[in-house]
Amino acid sequence: MQVVYSPAHLRHDPKFAIEQSRLLPTFEHVGRAEAIRETLQTDARFRFSAPSEWGLAPIEAVHDAGLIRFLARAWEDYQVAAGPTADVMPDVFYRPALRRGMGERGEPEAVQAQFGYWCFETTTPLTKGTYEAAITAVDTALTATQYVLDGKGTTYGLCRPPGHHSTSGMYGGYCFFNNAAVAAHHVASTTGTKVTVLDVDYHHGNGTQEIFYDRDDVQYVSLHGDPARAYPWNVGFADETGTGRGAGANINIPLAARTEDDAYIDALHSALEKIQAFGPSMVIVSLGLDTFFTDPISDLAITADGFERQGAAVAELGLPTVVLQEGGYDVAALGDNVRRWLIGAGA
Amino acid sequence: MQVVYSPAHLRHDPKFAIEQSRLLPTFEHVGRAEAIRETLQTDARFRFSAPSEWGLAPIEAVHDAGLIRFLARAWEDYQVAAGPTADVMPDVFYRPALRRGMGERGEPEAVQAQFGYWCFETTTPLTKGTYEAAITAVDTALTATQYVLDGKGTTYGLCRPPGHHSTSGMYGGYCFFNNAAVAAHHVASTTGTKVTVLDVDYHHGNGTQEIFYDRDDVQYVSLHGDPARAYPWNVGFADETGTGRGAGANINIPLAARTEDDAYIDALHSALEKIQAFGPSMVIVSLGLDTFFTDPISDLAITADGFERQGAAVAELGLPTVVLQEGGYDVAALGDNVRRWLIGAGA
Repeated sequence: MQVVYSPAHLRHDPKFAIEQSRLLPTFEHVGRAEAIRETLQTDARFRFSAPSEWGLAPIEAVHDAGLIRFLARAWEDYQVAAGPTADVMPDVFYRPALRRGMGERGEPEAVQAQFGYWCFETTTPLTKGTYEAAITAVDTALTATQYVLDGKGTTYGLCRPPGHHSTSGMYGGYCFFNNAAVAAHHVASTTGTKVTVLDVDYHHGNGTQEIFYDRDDVQYVSLHGDPARAYPWNVGFADETGTGRGAGANINIPLAARTEDDAYIDALHSALEKIQAFGPSMVIVSLGLDTFFTDPISDLAITADGFERQGAAVAELGLPTVVLQEGGYDVAALGDNVRRWLIGAGA
Repeated sequence: MQVVYSPAHLRHDPKFAIEQSRLLPTFEHVGRAEAIRETLQTDARFRFSAPSEWGLAPIEAVHDAGLIRFLARAWEDYQVAAGPTADVMPDVFYRPALRRGMGERGEPEAVQAQFGYWCFETTTPLTKGTYEAAITAVDTALTATQYVLDGKGTTYGLCRPPGHHSTSGMYGGYCFFNNAAVAAHHVASTTGTKVTVLDVDYHHGNGTQEIFYDRDDVQYVSLHGDPARAYPWNVGFADETGTGRGAGANINIPLAARTEDDAYIDALHSALEKIQAFGPSMVIVSLGLDTFFTDPISDLAITADGFERQGAAVAELGLPTVVLQEGGYDVAALGDNVRRWLIGAGA
């Protein structure tokens, strides 16, 4: 199986995050992607290649131009405005209700406040090289997608930073640009065919849902920890089924805590039926391994065998498939869990 | 001069806050109010009394019932949901754009996410006794106001936590309930007369502005660091003048960095002219001493003499006056700066 990887992800090098009222070492760090790379490189099934450069146009087709400009310059601007800070996070958040009756003003003047305008939480530090890494993660997704479009079979894009929490206009949840959404829009818009994003990360991909919520050319299907108890908390409920032309093209399957392999595979099969009914030309998998039973920030109970079964179930669709890396935080097991999923998918 | 004070503020005992991408000792701590109390107690001009209890009704008249319920229970709920945590802060913030096309859902199910629904930033820890302290700060404001209504002359309410950043539906900026807004609404609604809130804190009182923005019975007049460079960043601009019946009753005077006493007093005189034109029965001063030249989080250049001149200028209005404590973070100078302001005001 083809793997697309770039060491450019190392330039996104956060050291800590603010979670649960504490300053913690970040769960999303350079070691995650390196652990995956090392494991796959020891297995002859996987062939590595580097991403090609796709430029900003595919990102601009999905994300607010202001968000892109902000991410390109904000770290440097913050150093000037607030002094040397390796990991920059928002502290004050723009909420429209703050300006009740006053009208919208748009992006604040001060860069310190711009962070809380373009981001929705505190766990996603912007570092010196984040923008370049995020651009390369999109390039990785698009290059993997092109391999599939070119008929080279199921391809894995080792994207880092991940993407599925980033909405059209906001970043967060360890994500900056929505790699899977950029790839899905690219395929749908350049081929005129329908595309499905199947999200098996523990966390609901609120960003992908938001981007495609009113569209009928991209279906979003997600299995995830119920947002009543899990990040991203405010989005990902079963009653969110799409709007307008997109009505029916958004499918959320919230799962109970400690869901095990058999129950997960059952839920996945019902998701795959919805995908077959939609009739996409391609499936883009947002692959999270944080459903693993020892994941430090999640509460499902999937095993390595379960990941291989997931990959096999998706492969049974018989559709061109791109697999893009999202979460997974038990780093000791992460590489092998990815390997097993991809073996299931036909590696 | 009568001073209303309660040691109940000690129950709001935050140790740190997240500001500028760092975990810092909080600038708003118990030592602030104690420094003021100690200084005023050494001066025979000041007579101390305790607040009486006013119950929840005056708060419910100004704040969302859901916010009040949340603040009453959230710290305990968080201990159960997320484990022992003395200082609780939000990490994920509800932004309506996250649910673009999906409709509103209201307060999230999980308490961890409720923090980011009812709060707009990370510098305002909720601690075990915060709710009781915040209730007592409102009682302090209302008791001081009652002294003035009873004809006992200018009265100072040593409120802590402060209040002016809290909006009708959100807390933040070291504030929980908006003490000055509750007092102003109480006077306006029980006497049928007009009231002015004059805010001389360094930071714009976005909460007070939001609460009264569409009302013509409460005027809000603020001098503050320009939000183009200062917290609260998103609100406090000169073009925000009120809406509907409140049109013209909101007056913002943003000030340049390093503004000194003479320029400040000039700006204050123009504010006082607007107050005279409005014709209130009472002036409630939101007193911040963070305009002081050595304040650690602000950038104006007011001196102790300047504070006495401010108090004297307000006294020249000849209106019944309540002075309620807001900010001020150079704790070594804080007590004397309050004392000088109140001496100017006639203590």
